[in-house]
Amino acid sequence: MTLSIRNQLPGTVTEVHPGEVMATVKVRLSGGQELTAAITLEAVEQLGLAPGTAVSALVKSTEVSLATGRIEGVSIRNQLAGTVTRLVLGEAMATVKVTVEGGELTAAITKDAAGDLGLFVGSDVIALIKSTEVALATA
Amino acid sequence: MTLSIRNQLPGTVTEVHPGEVMATVKVRLSGGQELTAAITLEAVEQLGLAPGTAVSALVKSTEVSLATGRIEGVSIRNQLAGTVTRLVLGEAMATVKVTVEGGELTAAITKDAAGDLGLFVGSDVIALIKSTEVALATA
Amino acid sequence: MTLSIRNQLPGTVTEVHPGEVMATVKVRLSGGQELTAAITLEAVEQLGLAPGTAVSALVKSTEVSLATGRIEGVSIRNQLAGTVTRLVLGEAMATVKVTVEGGELTAAITKDAAGDLGLFVGSDVIALIKSTEVALATA
Repeated sequence: MTLSIRNQLPGTVTEVHPGEVMATVKVRLSGGQELTAAITLEAVEQLGLAPGTAVSALVKSTEVSLATGRIEGVSIRNQLAGTVTRLVLGEAMATVKVTVEGGELTAAITKDAAGDLGLFVGSDVIALIKSTEVALATA
Repeated sequence: MTLSIRNQLPGTVTEVHPGEVMATVKVRLSGGQELTAAITLEAVEQLGLAPGTAVSALVKSTEVSLATGRIEGVSIRNQLAGTVTRLVLGEAMATVKVTVEGGELTAAITKDAAGDLGLFVGSDVIALIKSTEVALATA
Repeated sequence: MTLSIRNQLPGTVTEVHPGEVMATVKVRLSGGQELTAAITLEAVEQLGLAPGTAVSALVKSTEVSLATGRIEGVSIRNQLAGTVTRLVLGEAMATVKVTVEGGELTAAITKDAAGDLGLFVGSDVIALIKSTEVALATA
């Protein structure tokens, strides 16, 4: 199976908090970081997600933002520390590869943002991912 | 109103599941596929969505992922089978047109992803869309 | 057309930066803030977007994050200052209404995030919106 979703991070479900139609699922990534996914309750049930389930967290590149440092006081649940390993600038958009503990992420951000952040290969960055942008897949 | 949102698929609401703040809405597309949208409860109420309501499902191109086959065990609710009809590669991003039963989709994915999937005009693909990325419009 | 998309902010296009497949479009909102949208080049052409075009910026609630203050060094282009006017907590998710200069925004964030930020009616917040999450509509 080949998927256009660049970011596929392996981990294990640690908590499931079901709401009436949505649920939040906590995942410990194999790199040690904790991730929160907000997915439909139906998906939780159909995938049989429970503490201990092995999953991959899937995040589309266009959903990954970057910051030059960790951010306090923000609703964005997922902040993964990493280092820029590659930077491709287009006319409007840029793609940035970031190595994080246990894997690699791709972020598609505007070229302007890449310039304003002064990103270069070797920059330390924090990848920011809103919980509603994280999908989960079972093996 | 003319929208930049490339993907506008006509259909009919079949189910509404209200939660406390969010709701999931099932839509049967005119092409026969079923789609799930996770939208605010407030939107459901203001649009008066109920089984039988004619709607368009709106999805921004940057929210459409592609796979080379159907995926089991994934939280992503919406998987639409189609065929690539056009592929435009930029430096960082690519846009891919996919004809599905009853309509056409545009996916904006990274150029790398387009390459890794080996997409060409005529490729069979599955368009993946997370429920939280589907908006609905009434006529 | 009535949209489930909660956030519809009127404004005027000030700049269009076309790339090969994507484009960034700057919009001055009627409240005076500047917004950046990353949309497909095709959409720019079909909508005839150019400096002076009257548009609405459309953002799904699930794409709005909140912070307790302005954030430096982040790729997220759009930061709109506002005040919380309503807060509804579900079991998994929460919706937060924020009055910004010239309009109102709804953010759908996790209940945990709402708690961690200590949000209350009257809180000053910054609404964060990634450029790729902004769609544009012409009247």
